[in-house]
Amino acid sequence: MKRLVLKFGGTSVGTTEKIRKVANIIKKRFSGDNEIIVVVSAMSGVTDDLKKKSESISKNFDKKELDALLSSGEQASCSLLAGALIDLGIKSRSWLGWQIPIITNNNHTSSQIIKIKNDEILNFISNKGVAVIAGFQGISKENRITTLGRGGSDLSAVAVAKFFQTDSCEIYTDVDGVFTTDPSINPKAKKIEKISYEEMLEMSSLGAKVMQPNAVQASMLDDIAIDVRSTFLENTGTKIVSENEIDFKNVVTGIAYSKGNAKVSIIGVVDKPGVAADVFEPIGKNNINIDMVIQNTSLDGKNANITFTIKQEDLNTTLSIIEKNKEKINFNKITHDDKLAKVSIIGAGMISESGVTHKMFRSLANEKINILAISTSEIKISVLIREELTQKAVKKLHEAFGLN
Amino acid sequence: MKRLVLKFGGTSVGTTEKIRKVANIIKKRFSGDNEIIVVVSAMSGVTDDLKKKSESISKNFDKKELDALLSSGEQASCSLLAGALIDLGIKSRSWLGWQIPIITNNNHTSSQIIKIKNDEILNFISNKGVAVIAGFQGISKENRITTLGRGGSDLSAVAVAKFFQTDSCEIYTDVDGVFTTDPSINPKAKKIEKISYEEMLEMSSLGAKVMQPNAVQASMLDDIAIDVRSTFLENTGTKIVSENEIDFKNVVTGIAYSKGNAKVSIIGVVDKPGVAADVFEPIGKNNINIDMVIQNTSLDGKNANITFTIKQEDLNTTLSIIEKNKEKINFNKITHDDKLAKVSIIGAGMISESGVTHKMFRSLANEKINILAISTSEIKISVLIREELTQKAVKKLHEAFGLN
Repeated sequence: MKRLVLKFGGTSVGTTEKIRKVANIIKKRFSGDNEIIVVVSAMSGVTDDLKKKSESISKNFDKKELDALLSSGEQASCSLLAGALIDLGIKSRSWLGWQIPIITNNNHTSSQIIKIKNDEILNFISNKGVAVIAGFQGISKENRITTLGRGGSDLSAVAVAKFFQTDSCEIYTDVDGVFTTDPSINPKAKKIEKISYEEMLEMSSLGAKVMQPNAVQASMLDDIAIDVRSTFLENTGTKIVSENEIDFKNVVTGIAYSKGNAKVSIIGVVDKPGVAADVFEPIGKNNINIDMVIQNTSLDGKNANITFTIKQEDLNTTLSIIEKNKEKINFNKITHDDKLAKVSIIGAGMISESGVTHKMFRSLANEKINILAISTSEIKISVLIREELTQKAVKKLHEAFGLN
Repeated sequence: MKRLVLKFGGTSVGTTEKIRKVANIIKKRFSGDNEIIVVVSAMSGVTDDLKKKSESISKNFDKKELDALLSSGEQASCSLLAGALIDLGIKSRSWLGWQIPIITNNNHTSSQIIKIKNDEILNFISNKGVAVIAGFQGISKENRITTLGRGGSDLSAVAVAKFFQTDSCEIYTDVDGVFTTDPSINPKAKKIEKISYEEMLEMSSLGAKVMQPNAVQASMLDDIAIDVRSTFLENTGTKIVSENEIDFKNVVTGIAYSKGNAKVSIIGVVDKPGVAADVFEPIGKNNINIDMVIQNTSLDGKNANITFTIKQEDLNTTLSIIEKNKEKINFNKITHDDKLAKVSIIGAGMISESGVTHKMFRSLANEKINILAISTSEIKISVLIREELTQKAVKKLHEAFGLN
């Protein structure tokens, strides 16, 4: 007997027909004497629709009310799924965040789970019941509904795995697993059998859409192995595990990319302590994420150029913030460039291998792809290139690092 | 200062634009130093859509899960409305059934409210906040979400009026008030200024759609005066009050009708004790409502004819149930007739006035409208006629009883 948590995403429960299909998958996993806890997202499109409704009422919709609103999506899907299981003759019931309860802090719209009370559900599943938990939601100590923000239901599943000490955490989604790169731009992409938390964290942070980075990070922190599977195919998927369990044959495990980046360069900044703070503080206050940062000091040590990247949609706001602070920052001019992509190679095997950076740059140079910025960590190298060259770069690197 | 409960139905909050409009109505009622509690239904169409989803998953969808599912509709509308009020600069928050809590029995899908805890909300409204309560929902002592069934949000509003001892209970809807008859089939229909609980109960039971009968009954039991108003027009509406507060000028207050009735006659039933039970028990067990019942004993006292009316859509099931029980019931034959309407005159003034029945029958006879069955109570007379004659009958009676 094993205790399993099975998480189904929005596309997996996107229609009532699909919900019935999911109920049958659960039935199959249940039949082997397993204890089953299911975590479910809202039906695809529902959360976006509710979000839009709130925005049409207020540009600045109250966050506590937004959480109450959005959590209704998972309330519907989890009761529909429990009903579908009961219809198959399986003992089942739904649990909402407040019924368990899943206690979070009161950081509305992006709360963190503090604790999940487990006695009632443990009793239910040990008596041959399938528990269905609404993902994405919890309650604060003030008894208000909270939501976990992006990747919310994955986070719920990881937390359930932790607080119920399950033997595995299966994430069912509309893809077959994690791939060496996006199959839609490179048909030679291959499914990865095992990937380390750290690699997966980089992959998802750098553009792979299978899991949200914060859910991967949560699984890494508590060493909760994740099994990413397809809802629609009976294949084995990808296991996300501790790096100790992986024999890194390849230097590079996968290639991720993100489009829609923009680059801003502030030229001739008077180089005094705190100048970077003067630049980035007002931008950060506007909830704009700075990604890569490069600072070059001039030869005479008096002036510097600061270059950074942001999302394309934040470009205009960013430029106007900098212009507004021109006197304080004290610079010569700004240049910018939009329609850029970030392409990254990721691999835990990189740490022990020299020449990876060189090989990457040479491969791109051979394709006449110009590198506009670089950022690295122990297990990844990211380069900024023109957006229209993304596919070419991904294909070349996929080949160069032996992933074809 | 007055304490008010304002209830808004599904059509009143059917779009986000309408929700903003409702927020403005509330703002106006709030400005006069009033304490405001709002009860809100799901956006129109939402409950039906969720119901359909449950039916496409199971013909016999689990009632507890159905309640969790359906209650999500009011969860969305009440948080949207609270958000709209906050956007107008009004202190507001939403309360779901479990947060208050509204305690009900565990008769899922048609629960009764036992108690509403009022301290938290009283504290909030006495501190210049507008409380928005999700209608239609509560929780059982087992901590499961319950719903109140038909007319649910009206029932919630009446219960809130009771447990918060409000000064009035305003039901905002898409019509202007209660009319002497349906204006869509008789343009001479007039808005009724005041109507007694008893009359309103008959009106709504007999076809008027403004309020559900069980909500009217609840208001009658606790003498909660109701003020039915239009969300979209700034008119005074109809007050539903105790009959002591009404000076009955007219014998008849209003005329109601319901289409879609069918009549079944069981001919030549052997007249022994318990035969009516043998007929009606299996029908009732199939959740089919029997409306009018007429039993004629034959002259020799050995045989009887039993005639009753049901909804058209229940006719086939009813006929097959009777056929199945033919031996037990022991009858000669069945006849049936569908496409019938029930037209009723209602008025508390009827009690002290003779000749009302006679006048009704004569008026219909003059129009050559045949009466197929009759049922009466102290304050109403209902007749069964052919459906296509409904409008003619309603117009004639409206004129005959001085309502034009």
